[in-house]
Amino acid sequence: MTPSEISSQATSPAHEARLLSRHNLLTNTSGIAPGYLQANLIVLPSRYAEHFRALCARNPVSCPLLGVTPRGDPHTVLPAGCIKTAEDFDIRTDFPCYRVYDKGKCVATKKPDIKDLWTPDHVGFLIGCSFSFEDALAAAGLTPRHQTTNTVVAMYRSSIPVLPAGIFTDAQCVVSMRPYRPEDVEKVRDVTRPFLATHGEPVAWGWEGAREIGVRDVDKPDFGQPQRFEEGEVPVFWACGVTPQLIVESAGDKIDGLVFAHEPGHMLVTDWTTEDLDRLRAEVAAV
Amino acid sequence: MTPSEISSQATSPAHEARLLSRHNLLTNTSGIAPGYLQANLIVLPSRYAEHFRALCARNPVSCPLLGVTPRGDPHTVLPAGCIKTAEDFDIRTDFPCYRVYDKGKCVATKKPDIKDLWTPDHVGFLIGCSFSFEDALAAAGLTPRHQTTNTVVAMYRSSIPVLPAGIFTDAQCVVSMRPYRPEDVEKVRDVTRPFLATHGEPVAWGWEGAREIGVRDVDKPDFGQPQRFEEGEVPVFWACGVTPQLIVESAGDKIDGLVFAHEPGHMLVTDWTTEDLDRLRAEVAAV
Repeated sequence: MTPSEISSQATSPAHEARLLSRHNLLTNTSGIAPGYLQANLIVLPSRYAEHFRALCARNPVSCPLLGVTPRGDPHTVLPAGCIKTAEDFDIRTDFPCYRVYDKGKCVATKKPDIKDLWTPDHVGFLIGCSFSFEDALAAAGLTPRHQTTNTVVAMYRSSIPVLPAGIFTDAQCVVSMRPYRPEDVEKVRDVTRPFLATHGEPVAWGWEGAREIGVRDVDKPDFGQPQRFEEGEVPVFWACGVTPQLIVESAGDKIDGLVFAHEPGHMLVTDWTTEDLDRLRAEVAAV
Repeated sequence: MTPSEISSQATSPAHEARLLSRHNLLTNTSGIAPGYLQANLIVLPSRYAEHFRALCARNPVSCPLLGVTPRGDPHTVLPAGCIKTAEDFDIRTDFPCYRVYDKGKCVATKKPDIKDLWTPDHVGFLIGCSFSFEDALAAAGLTPRHQTTNTVVAMYRSSIPVLPAGIFTDAQCVVSMRPYRPEDVEKVRDVTRPFLATHGEPVAWGWEGAREIGVRDVDKPDFGQPQRFEEGEVPVFWACGVTPQLIVESAGDKIDGLVFAHEPGHMLVTDWTTEDLDRLRAEVAAV
């Protein structure tokens, strides 16, 4: 299919992004289909699904669970609404590209699909991504620095423990960092607070805050690129969706069978919008 | 009312416990109405409710939210089912006794009720308590030491950060500790894992684990009593419901208006049973 054939067939910008990904016509999903939530991926053999679900339930800030595919069914995502075109969805192809892990080691990167490796025993987990709240920051006049400098956000291994669940133990939270003026920090916190399903408000801020979460040198990120600080700016840290991948890596040979993840920066575009998130939040708040 | 009048009037053991508490005929709720979930209490002026709700959503292991009373309504707990006798329930009297906080300082303890201080602006939060999973441990032949020695469980201020939300910042998780043999730790983890709404599985275990979460001397707990270790036993740590009280204390004078909490060990007995918890968990798992 050509991009124009896909465009005429797609029922929404999100659907179009998934079709483009399926036909390997899309790479980085940053800025694609604005307003739609994007998701990180972890696919596990089903015997680890209960432990991973407990991990997400215990660590919703670093591992916010958006949806799950039932065992062996790559076409359905629960809860409903996350993906509306279930008849035309495949978790094995609709990310731009994938990584493959064997016993905690990454053995393949930028794989266009995982149809050849998927088994009827696999369960897929969709996890929220910070792209969503970055739209909100930009709309509030607080555009993240890496967007204006066209770099990859700086990420660090922090000392914040990921609370253990089953086989998933001994991991720390990865944090992303965006520089802001101290007088803007409370506004930045307020803008991102509602995005509970996509990491929410910051976990730490300021130079003292950096020290407290074990980030010693902001100029030396563990992932991504260093960010430029303007005069007087301080670092602001959020939990980061890279955390689940590191948790899987740290589980190592406790995992028997292949594990799949998305290629960093290459997300799934879901059918949930930020308005849906507002509604979901309101439903939760009404309880 | 006399205990026998209450007993004949009560519709369930949980209801009876609440009526006894209301008439100041019950103190410590440990072991009362087995099988029913007990709850910790935080009552805040409504302008801090959104921040506290976000705090619980971000820290479900230390602050597992069971229910909320709507602003100014001490008789209703949402979601429904948590308290079935709404027509005969009052959050201001149905705990055995209360504490009062003013600007983060505890200004009254063991107060029998809070009817005189409650305002139409107050919102109550019910938070899960570890008494629930202790029943399950005992049923599995893993009775917590403090139950056999009739002491108060040992509690420590850990270095595990409580992820900040709104005005609630700069707090650490309080952990409770029970000694177990190393070969029993995996079983202890498995037994308590399902109790997501009541702190769930341990956050750390072993002597190295104690060091990692900042517990330097298990014989010197910050709250409760030291626990006796048998030969070869190691400490096992769970998140503890005392955490929300310390969070409120650390918010200090950022809170304008009176805050109420339960007296430690003096909980509310809810109408939810461990079977309800199984059902709630199954509903969540079905998503």
